[in-house]
Amino acid sequence: VPSTFRLTLEYDGAAFQGWQAQAGEVRTVQGVLEAAIARVSGERVRVQGSGRTDAGVHAEGQAASVCLATVRDLRVAPAGFDARRSARSKLYRYALWNGPVRSPLRAARAFCLPQRLDVEAMREAARALVGTHDFRSFQAAGSSVATTVRTLLRLEIRGAPGRALALDFEGTGFLRHMVRNLVGTLVEVGTGQRAAGQMPALLAARDRSRAGRTAPAHGLTLLRVRYEGDPEESGPQGADSDPLIAGGDSLDRSAS
Amino acid sequence: VPSTFRLTLEYDGAAFQGWQAQAGEVRTVQGVLEAAIARVSGERVRVQGSGRTDAGVHAEGQAASVCLATVRDLRVAPAGFDARRSARSKLYRYALWNGPVRSPLRAARAFCLPQRLDVEAMREAARALVGTHDFRSFQAAGSSVATTVRTLLRLEIRGAPGRALALDFEGTGFLRHMVRNLVGTLVEVGTGQRAAGQMPALLAARDRSRAGRTAPAHGLTLLRVRYEGDPEESGPQGADSDPLIAGGDSLDRSAS
Repeated sequence: VPSTFRLTLEYDGAAFQGWQAQAGEVRTVQGVLEAAIARVSGERVRVQGSGRTDAGVHAEGQAASVCLATVRDLRVAPAGFDARRSARSKLYRYALWNGPVRSPLRAARAFCLPQRLDVEAMREAARALVGTHDFRSFQAAGSSVATTVRTLLRLEIRGAPGRALALDFEGTGFLRHMVRNLVGTLVEVGTGQRAAGQMPALLAARDRSRAGRTAPAHGLTLLRVRYEGDPEESGPQGADSDPLIAGGDSLDRSAS
Repeated sequence: VPSTFRLTLEYDGAAFQGWQAQAGEVRTVQGVLEAAIARVSGERVRVQGSGRTDAGVHAEGQAASVCLATVRDLRVAPAGFDARRSARSKLYRYALWNGPVRSPLRAARAFCLPQRLDVEAMREAARALVGTHDFRSFQAAGSSVATTVRTLLRLEIRGAPGRALALDFEGTGFLRHMVRNLVGTLVEVGTGQRAAGQMPALLAARDRSRAGRTAPAHGLTLLRVRYEGDPEESGPQGADSDPLIAGGDSLDRSAS
């Protein structure tokens, strides 16, 4: 669903041949805005001004509207807001396709694993990973950070074996490749290569070589970042409860 | 004063070499955003992500922050908002520099008129223009609109003769070149070429050739556009009461 945005713009009229977009190399306010939006979003949209300003006329508070489907939200933040330092938690989803046949429609967004997974064993392993632990065993080799202790607030495995699966990781911070290394390890539990009960020992080892392989990047999606003052359920369109996101397939489809 | 913005972004990781900007031709999310902002605003700023995503990793709700001095405001609008059709009123300011010597610092933003203006006569003429009238005499020749009746809610002349002057026009809508033609006509009143009392007859004539010359574009600034639901005083930073805007000079400077 596209959102409508209202922009308030200031410009020096001397820099533009007026508001209205024109063919050719003429620099206009509307033309520059539309080109920039196309570059970022891939959407060719019309930016509607409150009216045209002629060549040379300035604006202190020109208003414009634009409908965009790809920009999820944009707002004025409190002074000092910093997307990295102000973050309280992040939610990542890793999508697996566990159907017996590779799915071309899902291959770009999910890690395809034809071997039927023991999801209950994976859930048992996941429970041991939740909490504050030293996750060094799951950090990319060669990384250097002050501490490898992180807090995993939630690790949920949704869906059913043999169909689409989603692994949701919510934490206050993540080490490099931590989610993908946890997924790779949990998949080895699901395939029976690794016992579900070995997670505490694996954490205690603090040794990357003891954990599983790094799952591929294309199955991973950053669903949302939460900040102080955000409403409790602040996912974009309730992303973390929407099974259609980051898998291209309803997790409930196995029931149909 | 720069504003801090919070963006929520969705992207397909396959289209980017990860989040972080890199030298050279590598396409990254941060790099594309920063280039687009530079193109629109002229500001070379850093877009801070909540963290990096690796090459191939997707985002449904990546968060980012950016400080911008040139973008005045940007917000999500109600569905159906249209900057042109939803507008309730617009406020334009025309800046005049009436000092006896041409001012290079003001020349780019103000119409420089060395001849001392009779501002009281201009104010008398302005009072006759406020209200709902047929403004055809002040419409650019050759324009074609359904009706040339417009409502001028306010026409204030601020400042003192011999220094900076600002003419504020607030109306529900304006004809093409209407503000500049009104300014040109009022200037002729200020220089004594035209009587202050002739405005009713000039309106009644509905004849462009009877009004004054079109004042140059570079003195004109669209200060703000007001929409239903906006607070009563919604100018950007109270633009319409800030004498420093659109003149490059305090209107009170004559007192110093």
